[in-house]
Amino acid sequence: MAIWPDEDSKSKRLYERGRKVYPGGITRLVPWLEPFPVYTKFGKGAYVTDVDGTARLDLLNNFASLIHGHCHPAIIDAVSKQLVLGTAFTNPTEVEIELAELLCDRIESAENVRFSNSGSEAVMSAIKAARAYTGRPAIVKVEGGYHGSYDYAEVSLDTPRDQFTSPPKSVGYAVGVPDRLLEDVYVIPFNDPETAANVIRAHKDRIGAILLDAAPSYLGFTHVTPEFAAKLRDLATEIGAVFILDEVITFRLDHGGAQKKFGVKPDLTVLGKIIGGGFPVGALVGSKEVMKVFDHHAGRPLVPWSGTFSANPITMVAGKATLDLLTPELIAHINALGDRARAGLTAAFASSGFPGQVTGVGSMFKIITHQRPVYDYRSQTHTAAESAAMVELQRMLVLKGFHVSGAGMAFLSTAMVAEDIDKFCAAAEESLCQLPHPASGE
Amino acid sequence: MAIWPDEDSKSKRLYERGRKVYPGGITRLVPWLEPFPVYTKFGKGAYVTDVDGTARLDLLNNFASLIHGHCHPAIIDAVSKQLVLGTAFTNPTEVEIELAELLCDRIESAENVRFSNSGSEAVMSAIKAARAYTGRPAIVKVEGGYHGSYDYAEVSLDTPRDQFTSPPKSVGYAVGVPDRLLEDVYVIPFNDPETAANVIRAHKDRIGAILLDAAPSYLGFTHVTPEFAAKLRDLATEIGAVFILDEVITFRLDHGGAQKKFGVKPDLTVLGKIIGGGFPVGALVGSKEVMKVFDHHAGRPLVPWSGTFSANPITMVAGKATLDLLTPELIAHINALGDRARAGLTAAFASSGFPGQVTGVGSMFKIITHQRPVYDYRSQTHTAAESAAMVELQRMLVLKGFHVSGAGMAFLSTAMVAEDIDKFCAAAEESLCQLPHPASGE
Repeated sequence: MAIWPDEDSKSKRLYERGRKVYPGGITRLVPWLEPFPVYTKFGKGAYVTDVDGTARLDLLNNFASLIHGHCHPAIIDAVSKQLVLGTAFTNPTEVEIELAELLCDRIESAENVRFSNSGSEAVMSAIKAARAYTGRPAIVKVEGGYHGSYDYAEVSLDTPRDQFTSPPKSVGYAVGVPDRLLEDVYVIPFNDPETAANVIRAHKDRIGAILLDAAPSYLGFTHVTPEFAAKLRDLATEIGAVFILDEVITFRLDHGGAQKKFGVKPDLTVLGKIIGGGFPVGALVGSKEVMKVFDHHAGRPLVPWSGTFSANPITMVAGKATLDLLTPELIAHINALGDRARAGLTAAFASSGFPGQVTGVGSMFKIITHQRPVYDYRSQTHTAAESAAMVELQRMLVLKGFHVSGAGMAFLSTAMVAEDIDKFCAAAEESLCQLPHPASGE
Repeated sequence: MAIWPDEDSKSKRLYERGRKVYPGGITRLVPWLEPFPVYTKFGKGAYVTDVDGTARLDLLNNFASLIHGHCHPAIIDAVSKQLVLGTAFTNPTEVEIELAELLCDRIESAENVRFSNSGSEAVMSAIKAARAYTGRPAIVKVEGGYHGSYDYAEVSLDTPRDQFTSPPKSVGYAVGVPDRLLEDVYVIPFNDPETAANVIRAHKDRIGAILLDAAPSYLGFTHVTPEFAAKLRDLATEIGAVFILDEVITFRLDHGGAQKKFGVKPDLTVLGKIIGGGFPVGALVGSKEVMKVFDHHAGRPLVPWSGTFSANPITMVAGKATLDLLTPELIAHINALGDRARAGLTAAFASSGFPGQVTGVGSMFKIITHQRPVYDYRSQTHTAAESAAMVELQRMLVLKGFHVSGAGMAFLSTAMVAEDIDKFCAAAEESLCQLPHPASGE
């Protein structure tokens, strides 16, 4: 029977259909694999099975959004019950209050909530809120920080080496981003309090928001130092800006989010991914003082914010079921699986002799195909040969039954057990032994 | 038994909880009613029942997103089957190809598709695509045109009277929108080919996109004239800009969308609402020539576009089930119901003597509490007293068992029958007879 990437596989046939209707054949970039993607048929717990019948351990979980893996019975049950009541209403529901109450209970800085449909939308709502609250147009962000598809938040996401300056300049992400937009974004290096202070103080009258991810994915999930977190908090207070923490991915790290784990004190927090239980979601939570920009009681709100499917009851019940299951003990369990994976992969690099490393924190890790220390955006950059080696490693792992991203990222689920991790590490070791070493230099 | 808006109603109790966790007590602006919203328990066909047990005819259908009303058995069935296979995967699925194929079949200008999670995201993807394709930063939009929450698309959505200039200037929507952003948006009046030509030609080297809704909701669903549609097409071609049609709401008007009905020839079309079958969705469709900006086959795409929940299989199967049901005959049926509602309401205004009118096209209508001709943004504006009259009419209709919006909008569903419309018109007539006439002037 044909399997991926055979020419007569069902994945190949679907890709041929996809090429006719999608630019590049796909509608999201992340699943791309050469020569064509693996098409999914169904998921169950920690595994996904493709259209040709091959089951693989899913270390991606729809890019960190399914913390309990696929088809958890409690989530299916909650959604099934809501499905026969209706999937979307104009008017509010009790379940949208329940999920908001839960978020306010768990997250120390959360007094008020505003839902949206994606992390990207929630980041946009946060930046709009900060502008309205401060009356200032500009934001500060970390070089290489990923915060969704709103252009302002995308600036300097993948600055090429030939444009490295100090302090970092604002580099557009999508081609054609307006020059005027770049002038409203200031970029700082990660975990560098001194440069942050210099940049922020130099533009203090223009800066309405400081945007941070406490463990940025592009930076190998390197986590924020206590000094950097404290400095950004102090600087925001000093200049009167809003401190926004993007926890779309990192909320999984602790029952109270990364802000609890790393002692970050934001005014606003952006959420997404796991809080929707496998359905589209975004949320902005924060202090009543800043969140009042959304309040309509004194007439037109400073920031009118709605969204046709925001807080739809299917997402709400799935999110609540997911978070009710996600106890501190279960978070400790997957964080320990993360430690196990990092230890196993570190051993695999050592025994294979392949020049690489694994980084990450909690239930997230990143395989990096070089050995240079990683502490910010620039230090993590790969040569073309190193990036190609990671893509080849990903392909080898897919053939052995494991899904990681082409950038080496993985997000564990509570459906996994130690044996899954051990099998994965063994497969990685086997692959690393066969993987040609990338040429050094550029 | 207590009902809305009784102090001891369940809606009141939920609102008190909502006030603790949401700015203003709610997470979307649209359902607001004085003194507090009606909270929904469930929907069935054309009706929604609130938490106090009152059933009402739902003329909003989650703001035009549920064209078959609530809980259509075929949609529940499709979603239930997918639910046990998984709700979201990193890798692509067959169902995302099926819905894309269906859209390309129906929409003449659609060769390629890119999904997102909301109409707002899809508009953002369209504007990014146009900028990348043309290398130009600015867009042109119609005064009063609603295109979601991306700041560029929100410009001059609700320009106050004291800022009316000719040609219209760019007025920010959310407070705090950067001045630099406003410089990249040019605003034109609706259905005015001459002013459009003057504005567009004056800035031709900066304009990458012309954005149009063929029947803008804020403008009472007044539809585009053949002259205006042709002029914008010609101007886009003349200056080398991308012509974007926003069909998030208007796709319901015809099996081939508003572009078929009104002869609009866009390069790109934005979709949302009904194509997700009651689940979060957005899509950009258009010519292969422009959509290639998303293609990754020649290296990094000009516009990288993904989205964690974009094209999730639940939305895909619900959208496909919805559109499979939506035959030309059924569209003709709800468009006829729209005609019936407009005729009935016109008669209600006449018999009641209330100075108002009803506008709209197909299955969408808008009650307007003044009698001045409506043909663009400025002509539809209401005095404060007229707006207050509409809100009071909405409240009276809610008490009689009918949901319309506070701006008088309504979107019909295929679950409705002529009797529903007749009952609604009778209730509107009764209400209009009791409704105090707004004072004339400001």
